[in-house]
Amino acid sequence: MSLSREVSRSVDFERPLVTVDVVIFTVVDDRLCVLLVRRPDDEDEPFPGRWALPGGFVDVQQDASLLACAQRKLRAKTGVASPYLEQLGSWGDAKRDPRGWSSTHAYFALIARPASQEAGRTPAEWLPLDQALRRRLAFDHNVLLNAAIERLRGKVEYTSLPAFLLPEPFTLPQLQRVYEVVLDRALDKSAFRKRMLDADYLDEAGPVTGDHGRPAMGYRLRERERATVFPRGFKSGE
Amino acid sequence: MSLSREVSRSVDFERPLVTVDVVIFTVVDDRLCVLLVRRPDDEDEPFPGRWALPGGFVDVQQDASLLACAQRKLRAKTGVASPYLEQLGSWGDAKRDPRGWSSTHAYFALIARPASQEAGRTPAEWLPLDQALRRRLAFDHNVLLNAAIERLRGKVEYTSLPAFLLPEPFTLPQLQRVYEVVLDRALDKSAFRKRMLDADYLDEAGPVTGDHGRPAMGYRLRERERATVFPRGFKSGE
Repeated sequence: MSLSREVSRSVDFERPLVTVDVVIFTVVDDRLCVLLVRRPDDEDEPFPGRWALPGGFVDVQQDASLLACAQRKLRAKTGVASPYLEQLGSWGDAKRDPRGWSSTHAYFALIARPASQEAGRTPAEWLPLDQALRRRLAFDHNVLLNAAIERLRGKVEYTSLPAFLLPEPFTLPQLQRVYEVVLDRALDKSAFRKRMLDADYLDEAGPVTGDHGRPAMGYRLRERERATVFPRGFKSGE
Repeated sequence: MSLSREVSRSVDFERPLVTVDVVIFTVVDDRLCVLLVRRPDDEDEPFPGRWALPGGFVDVQQDASLLACAQRKLRAKTGVASPYLEQLGSWGDAKRDPRGWSSTHAYFALIARPASQEAGRTPAEWLPLDQALRRRLAFDHNVLLNAAIERLRGKVEYTSLPAFLLPEPFTLPQLQRVYEVVLDRALDKSAFRKRMLDADYLDEAGPVTGDHGRPAMGYRLRERERATVFPRGFKSGE
């Protein structure tokens, strides 16, 4: 396609740097944890040696879309292919990255703790939230992390979201504990049980070994719940 | 700052095109309307002559942040400086713009109908929603528009949002009509009145001339409501 003078001028603008960052949550030992990666210890890099959220530049050759880019980064860090992944928001300005005007498309993901962590060459760590929040992260990643926590807690009360943090099948007491971990407060057992069963989020998966080795009913998240985890307003162009 | 080989390589990646688009709503003659602009009638431009949402490239020289960029585009099209402006989401992939890999940061805005429309050189039009939805807009703007409508309607029930669509002061019947216009259904008058006053959204602004020329109490949106219109999770880096 030939380009008019105006288009050429537009497209030749200095373009911002474009990144995708992913706030990845899981639960380890009844604590909500977030995955952080350590930046290279190189004084020529921005924020050398600092901890950061996993992420990086969009690769226009490799990534078909923003969502594909987020999935690639998630898979590279955790080995997990398609858990809960939702757009969190954008942050972009002239100052957040010393290399130049940059905007990031932030996502947040919920996964059951991966058996083995494929961290690749970058040191990575699951850190309990209270410890992560006390760190001074690279870029504006403390802001992104706080926004993700706020979004997650705001959605827990009326959704099946915390179930994504558990390996399946799970028992109702295990699910309740994950809700409590995310909300950071205790819930009434019979009210929780009633709400979960009334909400129709779960399918029975047959008996499993529950707490204290006693048999209990196992559950999985219903397919419908998985299918609706990308609100249309947030879904990337795929 | 000197750049290491790795950084240089990263920063020299082909960068996506970065745009900001704004879905701007108002109410005209009791109908919810959206502002559309006509693209240049030039075969070298993408989507020549097609209607589109107002927006365009981030200007790294001029825009301090994504939010500042959205405010600039809003002001340029409507003459309004600081109405309700919220991040809607991101859409980015290799195909949405024929000029190359592009990602857009979409915002949505609610304004009282501007007295005069400073459309600049671009033809612009307030179009009732049903008509706008029947048009085949440029890029993926139909998707963005649908996402904005869904977000707006989803928020109306429990927020003061529709008040931003009215010039102040307004009467309670005027406010009710705007809620009805956005929700596209009738509301019970006494229940609406009670909910608005209980919710503590409004300040009295003295008597005004209401429907049929009769005096009625005028209201304004409380300052607190204005202060909370940028949820932290969505606010751009300003």
